[in-house]
Amino acid sequence: MRARGSPVQIVIVHVVDDGRDLLSRGVAETLLGARESWTRRMFEQGAALRRAGGGPVHDLSLGNPSLEPPARWTRALHDLLDDPTPGMHRYMTNAGYADVREFIAGREQVRFGLPITGPLVTMTVGAAGGLNVVLRAMMNPGDELLVPVPYFSEYEHYCTNVGAVLVPAPSTASFALDVDAIVSRIGERTRIVLLNSPNNPSGAVYVGENLDRLADALRRLERDRERPIFIIEDSPYRDLTHDGSPVASMMSRYDHTIHLTSHSKDLGLAGERIGYIVLSPRAAGHELLTRAFAFCNRVLGFVNAPALMQRALPRVLGQPDGRVDVEVYARRCRRMADGLIALGFDVLPPKAGFFLFPGLPAALRDEQGGDVVLTERLLAERTIVVPGTAFGVPGHLRLSMAADDAAIDGALAAFERACR
Amino acid sequence: MRARGSPVQIVIVHVVDDGRDLLSRGVAETLLGARESWTRRMFEQGAALRRAGGGPVHDLSLGNPSLEPPARWTRALHDLLDDPTPGMHRYMTNAGYADVREFIAGREQVRFGLPITGPLVTMTVGAAGGLNVVLRAMMNPGDELLVPVPYFSEYEHYCTNVGAVLVPAPSTASFALDVDAIVSRIGERTRIVLLNSPNNPSGAVYVGENLDRLADALRRLERDRERPIFIIEDSPYRDLTHDGSPVASMMSRYDHTIHLTSHSKDLGLAGERIGYIVLSPRAAGHELLTRAFAFCNRVLGFVNAPALMQRALPRVLGQPDGRVDVEVYARRCRRMADGLIALGFDVLPPKAGFFLFPGLPAALRDEQGGDVVLTERLLAERTIVVPGTAFGVPGHLRLSMAADDAAIDGALAAFERACR
Repeated sequence: MRARGSPVQIVIVHVVDDGRDLLSRGVAETLLGARESWTRRMFEQGAALRRAGGGPVHDLSLGNPSLEPPARWTRALHDLLDDPTPGMHRYMTNAGYADVREFIAGREQVRFGLPITGPLVTMTVGAAGGLNVVLRAMMNPGDELLVPVPYFSEYEHYCTNVGAVLVPAPSTASFALDVDAIVSRIGERTRIVLLNSPNNPSGAVYVGENLDRLADALRRLERDRERPIFIIEDSPYRDLTHDGSPVASMMSRYDHTIHLTSHSKDLGLAGERIGYIVLSPRAAGHELLTRAFAFCNRVLGFVNAPALMQRALPRVLGQPDGRVDVEVYARRCRRMADGLIALGFDVLPPKAGFFLFPGLPAALRDEQGGDVVLTERLLAERTIVVPGTAFGVPGHLRLSMAADDAAIDGALAAFERACR
Repeated sequence: MRARGSPVQIVIVHVVDDGRDLLSRGVAETLLGARESWTRRMFEQGAALRRAGGGPVHDLSLGNPSLEPPARWTRALHDLLDDPTPGMHRYMTNAGYADVREFIAGREQVRFGLPITGPLVTMTVGAAGGLNVVLRAMMNPGDELLVPVPYFSEYEHYCTNVGAVLVPAPSTASFALDVDAIVSRIGERTRIVLLNSPNNPSGAVYVGENLDRLADALRRLERDRERPIFIIEDSPYRDLTHDGSPVASMMSRYDHTIHLTSHSKDLGLAGERIGYIVLSPRAAGHELLTRAFAFCNRVLGFVNAPALMQRALPRVLGQPDGRVDVEVYARRCRRMADGLIALGFDVLPPKAGFFLFPGLPAALRDEQGGDVVLTERLLAERTIVVPGTAFGVPGHLRLSMAADDAAIDGALAAFERACR
């Protein structure tokens, strides 16, 4: 695959299996088996390239927000530290500070047009923590979670944690919801439909019309079931739409909805681990569910969302400079999209976030494993991407525009050479 | 049980079971069943008392550190925010910042006299997060974790998370390790022996001589087993010994040891969720295990320990004012111990931390469920404690001295009335 005469030597070091029998079976299978994450594999190959030297590596593999937190957030932390409330760094109730939950509830009330109160909000260690809390609270081994493709590959691990089964559902060619396909995959064991909108990796935002149809279908199914199917809405990119328009939600459309978000992206705080769960006041059993979320937050070892990060939110969210400048990501997406379109890629301009998910040019599209082939060609050109295969959608690549402009320039040049 | 004429009306509100079938079985059983945590029950009763009004409530039920973080920690945060490194709030590798791990490794190397390097350190969301990571990495359903009584009751939930079985082992009357009792309970499914020293709730510190004997016994067993038994050492109170003496550890005594700690107590940061795992360089399979810890940190939804808290540690730990003043806790422990001894309680002065675990006076000791009876009498006196039954050791009470002096005064007066 590698261009002749290229000086790059890629050596993939396989870890010796010494110690496999010390690991739990699930972890051993994943770490040592074929299921090892593509994202991690690409990360390791990028690291090997960097160690080998020979110039810059153009790494578009990671969804690590490159914009720094807004200055208002930094000021909020200084202010909190300068004027401390006694006990503000101690344990609080496992669901989070009551006043912070009230503040979040007030904002979500306006966003969703629902009477959301503080007790319906659970502060979590990011959206990843929140999703694990919800799954642990609700899923028995063998229960099914339905998710439209393409999907964030970590969802598979989160299901494995509780013994649940991830069932993928097809989407349309433009990655819109295919409601009929989702409904046709609902069975007796289906407990939850998980929607990730704006979507990682496709950048698609699910439109209200399709959400209405899905809600109608779930309501019809409810009559014949012992308990309703729940919707989990995972929306960490909801405040990063490129044109600033609001993201349609199931919260106002379907009673049994659990909304999850984090401030990893809009405040650039991925490493600080702050997010939350909002449960619809109309959801079945919502009082018991919120108690279960707090309990699972505790016993899974999160205990509570980081205290200082909780306290900072009311001082930042909704303020004029209380968010990163999404136009930076939008501009990079447009630039990369234009370059790829010129090379024959099929690009749906992303509506939010910082991922592009282009379809391969015709010549490569018809090739078996074309996305993996192109990923390897790009690697030889010192450019790191993730093949669509990793997200259940071969024939695509995921490119993160949470990289700097130099990486994007370098990557575009590499694409030109690799696609020649 | 309540003193005649007392104006207190305690109404325990039972949550209606509406929604039980929405919960996973394990969570439903715990939240709605008899296993509900005593600590939580006492917390709720305390809250009910407070809502009812009628003067102060003396709450000795919670292990929430009452001392504020040292000023040096606050300065460290200001300094980090004033002089930010690009990307310092983003995701880093799941095991934590390499330089922070190196710094921790350097300190642990000196503490344990072992060649501990950065890769053997995994930064975690507190010790609770770390323990869940280790159990997930190593335990299969049905595997057994042995733990000497009394033990932190959350351990049961952590085992449940991975389908493991907690097997309690007796201790001596003074809560020292009973090595023979531990060894006699080791079976084919035993994977881990979990030691919590300094101990919550007893305040005992396991002595080196007993740890030597345990290490010898585990080494002898190793010959006949496919894989060694691992020791997990959970030591969040290790830097809070009342006389400043170091805590004996298995790290220098037994190869297959995993040490866990957090800064919840020594830095008063329980709500900020920062701790770490240190794996012995002599442990079997240590390279694969550290990889598994990073992987589990990721897929359990922690992703990484909070970034800013990681960064603060090298600026605080080991500095002259880099710790809370443990003498405050020690003084409160002595005061409460003296008062209880005068009332006929059997008190082993705690060696570390802020918990007292007195044995009941003779009259109550002989009564079936005497600890629960006294807990209820104290409740009628507006004083909240946790019965030893919650820790597998009836006939004792757990009293947290992480309360202010007024609560301790009030509680002592309540004890006098309740024990009359």
